[in-house]
Amino acid sequence: MPRTAAVIIIGNEILSGKVRDENSHFLASELRQLGVKLSLVMVIQDDVDEIASTVASCAKRYDYVFTSGGIGPTHDDVTMQGIARAFGRKLVVDEKLKDMIEKRCGVPSSVVMRMAELPEGGELIELNGINFPPMRLENVYVFPGIPEFLRKKFAALKERFRDKPYFTSRVYINGEECLIADTLDAVAKRFPAVEIGSYPKIGERDYKVLVTFESMEEEAVKQAVDELLKMLPREIVLRTL
Amino acid sequence: MPRTAAVIIIGNEILSGKVRDENSHFLASELRQLGVKLSLVMVIQDDVDEIASTVASCAKRYDYVFTSGGIGPTHDDVTMQGIARAFGRKLVVDEKLKDMIEKRCGVPSSVVMRMAELPEGGELIELNGINFPPMRLENVYVFPGIPEFLRKKFAALKERFRDKPYFTSRVYINGEECLIADTLDAVAKRFPAVEIGSYPKIGERDYKVLVTFESMEEEAVKQAVDELLKMLPREIVLRTL
Repeated sequence: MPRTAAVIIIGNEILSGKVRDENSHFLASELRQLGVKLSLVMVIQDDVDEIASTVASCAKRYDYVFTSGGIGPTHDDVTMQGIARAFGRKLVVDEKLKDMIEKRCGVPSSVVMRMAELPEGGELIELNGINFPPMRLENVYVFPGIPEFLRKKFAALKERFRDKPYFTSRVYINGEECLIADTLDAVAKRFPAVEIGSYPKIGERDYKVLVTFESMEEEAVKQAVDELLKMLPREIVLRTL
Repeated sequence: MPRTAAVIIIGNEILSGKVRDENSHFLASELRQLGVKLSLVMVIQDDVDEIASTVASCAKRYDYVFTSGGIGPTHDDVTMQGIARAFGRKLVVDEKLKDMIEKRCGVPSSVVMRMAELPEGGELIELNGINFPPMRLENVYVFPGIPEFLRKKFAALKERFRDKPYFTSRVYINGEECLIADTLDAVAKRFPAVEIGSYPKIGERDYKVLVTFESMEEEAVKQAVDELLKMLPREIVLRTL
């Protein structure tokens, strides 16, 4: 069984439609390539209680939790408070982080204090080429909301999550989904280790449905694809990848 | 207080990174324009229990729940089952829907049956120009995952959700976020009815931080913006919209 993950996007700007979230799709693709199963994405408000209850429940249910957003210096940045509350920890000033922020910003002490506070027991993960290290508390990894920074930090960190790869295959169908539904159903039942998805697509020039196969078991993917191809009328199968 | 909403995106293809979700951003923008407060987005798996528990808890907590995905004819389309379980209802064949599907697809009866089943008490909302009407059960509205279809159906339905508008304003700042944090904090405390957001932006040519103001109270937005402009050094304020 693959390890599981949840991604928690923290930010009113996403919920109000002002900003389009890019981080969840990025993390979804990255985690899949690492062999980690992303089981849940949540977009929640900049609210301490909301963050605390969401992080607490996800940390119990999934192997990894990744948060994005809410770690800047302004009044609406309350992610660290929320995570501290989720684990019943106090916020404490991290002296190393305090130095970094003072050097970088040279700003009022209230701002430095806000950004230098971490939940007790939180680990700053030192990474090559990264100025402000991401924080980990238990199985929760805290990333900034700005996509450029999140990507850079995740890239520097990601090898620690790598697991066995997924094996995948794709079959492109030139026919309506309802024509292949019974066949897919039969194949899905015969190969329970293979996750089979069926995605009708509007506006593609050649195909009407993309069928995807995914599994940790390479042989099972091959067999499921073969079985499907055997059962479908040849003229509606365009190509297999 | 505005009415609240949750959006539930149902689909393994989003979680595995194969497909980028477009529906939550679309619904976020639309709901905001309608004066509805989107409080939560969840992306969950094509799993009956997961759908049932998520829908049940969201339907209790929020005024409206919108789901997207999982209503096609294939084995991985289990949204109707999940919603039925959320409310403790049986799935029953809707004769009108059955006729529509038979006429449209002319397909095996198993597929027709799967697509013609609705939770008991579910209402098909007849809309001009829409072939397959969206379903409502209690405060849950069920939409397809294909963005083109979701948009068309939501557009036909949306006036029923319209409420008092939000008033907004934006101030563009040419300075680091840490320089304005204390000021923002003070303004946010003085105007609790105004939601103030601060968004640093990388790679913009002119501004470094966008500050947004939102409220149902037009006058409060104006006053909060004026207060901020009075307190900030004039040279870092680029423009106000």
